[in-house]
Amino acid sequence: MISARNQFKGEIKMVKLGEVMAEVVVQVGDLEVVAAITRTSAENLKLKPGDVVTALIKATEVMIAKE
Amino acid sequence: MISARNQFKGEIKMVKLGEVMAEVVVQVGDLEVVAAITRTSAENLKLKPGDVVTALIKATEVMIAKE
Amino acid sequence: MISARNQFKGEIKMVKLGEVMAEVVVQVGDLEVVAAITRTSAENLKLKPGDVVTALIKATEVMIAKE
Amino acid sequence: MISARNQFKGEIKMVKLGEVMAEVVVQVGDLEVVAAITRTSAENLKLKPGDVVTALIKATEVMIAKE
Amino acid sequence: MISARNQFKGEIKMVKLGEVMAEVVVQVGDLEVVAAITRTSAENLKLKPGDVVTALIKATEVMIAKE
Amino acid sequence: MISARNQFKGEIKMVKLGEVMAEVVVQVGDLEVVAAITRTSAENLKLKPGDVVTALIKATEVMIAKE
Repeated sequence: MISARNQFKGEIKMVKLGEVMAEVVVQVGDLEVVAAITRTSAENLKLKPGDVVTALIKATEVMIAKE
Repeated sequence: MISARNQFKGEIKMVKLGEVMAEVVVQVGDLEVVAAITRTSAENLKLKPGDVVTALIKATEVMIAKE
Repeated sequence: MISARNQFKGEIKMVKLGEVMAEVVVQVGDLEVVAAITRTSAENLKLKPGDVVTALIKATEVMIAKE
Repeated sequence: MISARNQFKGEIKMVKLGEVMAEVVVQVGDLEVVAAITRTSAENLKLKPGDVVTALIKATEVMIAKE
Repeated sequence: MISARNQFKGEIKMVKLGEVMAEVVVQVGDLEVVAAITRTSAENLKLKPGDVVTALIKATEVMIAKE
Repeated sequence: MISARNQFKGEIKMVKLGEVMAEVVVQVGDLEVVAAITRTSAENLKLKPGDVVTALIKATEVMIAKE
């Protein structure tokens, strides 16, 4: 169990590998969640489209916008 | 238009005010998104339950877990 | 209106695109503010030198150093 | 020398202490920079109005908004 | 398995609860690692001194200083 | 003196440069600490294996996991 308040289960739609960083797009219901992690992490977890994963986000990283 | 890749529209369910920080819970479809922002921001935006807001998260703040 | 406490208006001086990430330098008065965002965000916003933009930073991301 | 790309020298205008967190407002030229740090850090550095300090922000924490 | 590159196992030395946030100090070998998480997370995980836990930190959150 | 609560002294083991970002691995006692910083920062600090450096992490960026 991890303290991150936001944990969203979904399926990987896309993995783009750069030299140092990687972008991972996860489909969570109707939402797309985008993560920028290190390439090494993406490789360690062998992330690929179709994988069932959880996107985690610490509450201190979330902002609120109101019109 | 803002560069944050994750922008989720929802409705505020709860606002808890501390002395310096505030916790805001936003219902986004089936998901609950939790934000920890400064109390001053919560007051500046007059956040309260029922408000329609957008939760914003930079992609570099998102992690991926895989079983 | 967004909860990020730091919102600095300025003009883009430089955009450097990598495969996954992009670096954007914004001139804010006498200060240079540097952002590392995803390349996709830089492309979505069509960021280029001369653009008037706002750099946003959540208060929880700011540290203080004192000699 | 520290890797944080954004280092802005200024003067503390306000320190608000909560139980766990503290809010520090720094005047940097015409700009106000707001930091949310732990109360213990604010106490360790003996932060108070009038102190000359540097606000530091990692580039990966900066977002860009464009109208 | 989670993408956060820094995962340090240790034992909780101290938990301080504020209204919204909590500070948790973890002894990792000779190092003390300090986390500021939401109070709700600290309560959900029933964190208390003596608990064996893992401190997790995303690589994009780490800075480097060199003299 | 800087407000970041986590400051771990160690020796650089590896520097990998991408176009925009760089990955730096620091040996801190028995631990490896991994940082993703901008390439420009890595170049400004002339980071290379064998350098004695300090890894800094803000407490608000640390999460806690408990089994």
